[in-house]
Amino acid sequence: MKPPERDGIWYLDSQTPTCLFSYKVKRVLFTGETRYQRVEVVETYDYGKCLIIDGKIQSSTSDEWIYHEALVHPAMLSHPNPRRVLVIGGGEGATLREVLKHPSVEEAVMVDLDQEVVSIVKEYMGELPQGSFENPKVKLYFEDGRRFLSGQPDQSFDVIIVDVTDPVEGSPSIPLYTREFYEEASRKLTGEGILTTQASPLYYNLDCHTRIYRTLAVVFPVARSYKADVPAYVSSWGFVVGSKKPDPAALQPDEVNRRIRERGIRDLKFYDGLTHRFMFTHPKHIRRALEAEGRISTDREPVSMPV
Amino acid sequence: MKPPERDGIWYLDSQTPTCLFSYKVKRVLFTGETRYQRVEVVETYDYGKCLIIDGKIQSSTSDEWIYHEALVHPAMLSHPNPRRVLVIGGGEGATLREVLKHPSVEEAVMVDLDQEVVSIVKEYMGELPQGSFENPKVKLYFEDGRRFLSGQPDQSFDVIIVDVTDPVEGSPSIPLYTREFYEEASRKLTGEGILTTQASPLYYNLDCHTRIYRTLAVVFPVARSYKADVPAYVSSWGFVVGSKKPDPAALQPDEVNRRIRERGIRDLKFYDGLTHRFMFTHPKHIRRALEAEGRISTDREPVSMPV
Amino acid sequence: MKPPERDGIWYLDSQTPTCLFSYKVKRVLFTGETRYQRVEVVETYDYGKCLIIDGKIQSSTSDEWIYHEALVHPAMLSHPNPRRVLVIGGGEGATLREVLKHPSVEEAVMVDLDQEVVSIVKEYMGELPQGSFENPKVKLYFEDGRRFLSGQPDQSFDVIIVDVTDPVEGSPSIPLYTREFYEEASRKLTGEGILTTQASPLYYNLDCHTRIYRTLAVVFPVARSYKADVPAYVSSWGFVVGSKKPDPAALQPDEVNRRIRERGIRDLKFYDGLTHRFMFTHPKHIRRALEAEGRISTDREPVSMPV
Amino acid sequence: MKPPERDGIWYLDSQTPTCLFSYKVKRVLFTGETRYQRVEVVETYDYGKCLIIDGKIQSSTSDEWIYHEALVHPAMLSHPNPRRVLVIGGGEGATLREVLKHPSVEEAVMVDLDQEVVSIVKEYMGELPQGSFENPKVKLYFEDGRRFLSGQPDQSFDVIIVDVTDPVEGSPSIPLYTREFYEEASRKLTGEGILTTQASPLYYNLDCHTRIYRTLAVVFPVARSYKADVPAYVSSWGFVVGSKKPDPAALQPDEVNRRIRERGIRDLKFYDGLTHRFMFTHPKHIRRALEAEGRISTDREPVSMPV
Repeated sequence: MKPPERDGIWYLDSQTPTCLFSYKVKRVLFTGETRYQRVEVVETYDYGKCLIIDGKIQSSTSDEWIYHEALVHPAMLSHPNPRRVLVIGGGEGATLREVLKHPSVEEAVMVDLDQEVVSIVKEYMGELPQGSFENPKVKLYFEDGRRFLSGQPDQSFDVIIVDVTDPVEGSPSIPLYTREFYEEASRKLTGEGILTTQASPLYYNLDCHTRIYRTLAVVFPVARSYKADVPAYVSSWGFVVGSKKPDPAALQPDEVNRRIRERGIRDLKFYDGLTHRFMFTHPKHIRRALEAEGRISTDREPVSMPV
Repeated sequence: MKPPERDGIWYLDSQTPTCLFSYKVKRVLFTGETRYQRVEVVETYDYGKCLIIDGKIQSSTSDEWIYHEALVHPAMLSHPNPRRVLVIGGGEGATLREVLKHPSVEEAVMVDLDQEVVSIVKEYMGELPQGSFENPKVKLYFEDGRRFLSGQPDQSFDVIIVDVTDPVEGSPSIPLYTREFYEEASRKLTGEGILTTQASPLYYNLDCHTRIYRTLAVVFPVARSYKADVPAYVSSWGFVVGSKKPDPAALQPDEVNRRIRERGIRDLKFYDGLTHRFMFTHPKHIRRALEAEGRISTDREPVSMPV
Repeated sequence: MKPPERDGIWYLDSQTPTCLFSYKVKRVLFTGETRYQRVEVVETYDYGKCLIIDGKIQSSTSDEWIYHEALVHPAMLSHPNPRRVLVIGGGEGATLREVLKHPSVEEAVMVDLDQEVVSIVKEYMGELPQGSFENPKVKLYFEDGRRFLSGQPDQSFDVIIVDVTDPVEGSPSIPLYTREFYEEASRKLTGEGILTTQASPLYYNLDCHTRIYRTLAVVFPVARSYKADVPAYVSSWGFVVGSKKPDPAALQPDEVNRRIRERGIRDLKFYDGLTHRFMFTHPKHIRRALEAEGRISTDREPVSMPV
Repeated sequence: MKPPERDGIWYLDSQTPTCLFSYKVKRVLFTGETRYQRVEVVETYDYGKCLIIDGKIQSSTSDEWIYHEALVHPAMLSHPNPRRVLVIGGGEGATLREVLKHPSVEEAVMVDLDQEVVSIVKEYMGELPQGSFENPKVKLYFEDGRRFLSGQPDQSFDVIIVDVTDPVEGSPSIPLYTREFYEEASRKLTGEGILTTQASPLYYNLDCHTRIYRTLAVVFPVARSYKADVPAYVSSWGFVVGSKKPDPAALQPDEVNRRIRERGIRDLKFYDGLTHRFMFTHPKHIRRALEAEGRISTDREPVSMPV
């Protein structure tokens, strides 16, 4: 039996004020401050290379595919024919990578606040974007996602994917989790348009997730909470999808598999028909919490996480 | 924003040799060594009171109901009429508590190696057994579960529930995860009998889970892997059910809900029809790993976890 | 080679915001809040039983005798005939214990803010006071030490010993480290009277020590900084003595040993003539820092430690 | 008040199996394995840049001058005229730097096992050697120090300085702490020759220090234990000097200061006459432990540290 290790370089990651996770580090590839945030790229023994922003693991090479497939494909598959897609955030390029697996996509616009993160990812974690930033279908903008959206009166999108950091207190991501933002996004969506967003963990701070869900539910005709288990996030991770018409939760496993096949989507490791069913099926107490939630997130009173 | 805390008493819990979780402790209720193991009862800020055996959190008051409902009800509901139930392990009494929610149960036999754990639980965590140890339907034995089973030539059970610690290297639980044990248990099961066992986490050490699954699959006509998310275990937790006839995975949500209603099972916080579907629906990569597993666990070469 | 341990109960003790020490705990004897402070008694593997107040180790059974002998005897030996002694703080009773080793002492008055600490010590760490609280020469008062001193117009003391917690920001100990307090104490001292105080570590936060030294140097004709190595404090620990006449630093080893012998002081494990020399001899950079210090601590601008 | 920090990269450093110190890391400058050992250069907030070998802090820029001045000058000053000096170990080059402050030195030979450490130090911690490796008086050899010494039948040295890692179990340093090695070294010393060695901490594992002391005491006519407080080592650090004739402990402060002045030794931050007295004056319990030690370290039964 391999003894537990102690000495050496570790990464410490607060989950709550009274809970701390520590990972031994094999190599430190990058540490620095961009204009907006603190960025670290470390290689851990448990999760491979990790991109860490402001002390929170954003993606690890060992399981980022779970998160990114879960974020992208339910919305894309639910839409009948996604041609124009907007990604807000998504600096790792892995969300783009998943979007580009859909041959129907003609244009993928990505807007991230922080150009330096994209450069760091390209240099140290190229296995994430896998060249997506250079794909001719992609248009990259580096600015505030919400301002960008407001400034595009003539544009519309079939799918909008919000892939930004958690709404931790003080974070620039907070305005991307409010009713006003979702209303603006809804106006930019086409008739069967769908917005999907990462929506914080399902266990600790569950009320953050349920409040994002409730907010989308007041803006969109259809709103669904779903989840995926991402080991590096040590929790079931939450997502919420808001839709103008198609209901992702109504898609049966066979139909999901048929669309994957017919649309020619390849290289999925996590997502398929049964995975779709798994993601949209919550246990009883989570359903209860979603139903019981009455608060929404607004610009005046936005949702925020304590840590 | 509440600042992260540091000073004071913490509980450190190794996940892997290179991964360490730490929880701040509000109160230490008990620390000691029984004849078999080290036992601690601590109250954490994140998970309430925790029973810790040999350094591993066994149950926390904040979410033990998820684990225990998940362990007990799929097997019990799948069986047409469970009257005699055997619990191996289960020192917290919470497995008994869930078994006793089924009015069909006439006798619940529990065999645990460690009588002192039961005493500690009764004194410091009475909210777990909720008086189950005193229920007249319950017969308690304190001895090795496997030896007990072999020594009961005339007994048979409708459901056998294995609720013992992980097969960590050197643990006395290891012989309760082998083909020979499952064969012995199968002989003690009635015609539609079902055995269910906790089966280690689904992510790190996944091969431990898949190997337990494969072992049950060579012994029982029906074997199913399922899971539940237990926050205090910081991972999707695995279970495996082996059945002589009924297939738990074939139970539809409506049928589960009907049985719960008709059988008069009350006070379920986690489990219902959709939860049942959720538990038995794995994402693609987990299904692949289960299918690909070829090794079984035997007395000669038992499964074991490195940490 | 014994492998490093990880799992289990640990005590975490911040040294600085970026430095954290952790000790594995064998037993937790007491945790609670008194009216004034958080108190814990834990038994560690490295230092035996530790009294911890507000997250800081105050005394450990493995080496409290170093601290308490160092605090008490240089002042007591330097005074020609200490009969009336005042201890401010000193809830462990170990300072009293050392004072009472001097047969010349007729009355030892102890004033501590927190009666509950004394009760906890008596119950869980009786090896510290060794019955001193019950000694007929002792008078115990539970109130603020500074207020007590002001309220005794007719009393005078040969030696005053200040044994209170560090002047951490927000601590009730801060007013016991200011010029105004030392002036009040000086008025209550007899003609050859001496005040000694614990004075924070010599390395990190060295400027806290040097400032206490400078403050005593403006109040007393003689002021000396000295130190002792207390392993549980993981640093050379500082003390300062202010004297109306005798100079402790001038006492030669032979003279110290002669006085110990002649006065009949027994059971010293740490202190003797060479130890006295060791304590009053600082390396060059510490002497430089003491000389360079220009700031004093006053009620308006008291010294305080950041952590 | 600055809150304690948690998230981010930390360095964990075991002191004992049950004691762990953690330092937050500002930058990781180097991590790698040489042919002989694991080497890390990290910049901490508390101690500046640290050279870490096999998980132990060897030198930190914030206080390495305390260690290196303490190691070098007592032996060099005690010798009447040190011209030829041998340094065994000393890969940081800081021991050479201190040796070269003595104008009497004509040749300084350094033998270190690990050439790569010297390269790493030159690239990442050039403030330690300050060019010493390039000094024309210096001869560098990269090989085992003990073998080197045996292979120099015609060489003799005035001072030999042993600056190698602790005799941790399994370490290649262990043979440099035995009677046989000291006997060989003694044969290579001139008539008033002196050997000095770092000799592990004075508190935890004190018996390691006392045993090294006792070993030198059976080989040399004069043997003295001394110490210095090095904050990054969080303990009083031990040294032992063995001498064929001069007694370092007999040097009075004035004589030390006179020699420093007359020999033209400059740029001392830690060492002077009073520092010399401080270093050679132990408190009572340390003197007792040194006197009581009866075991020596031999090739057959060498001293070794458990962690």
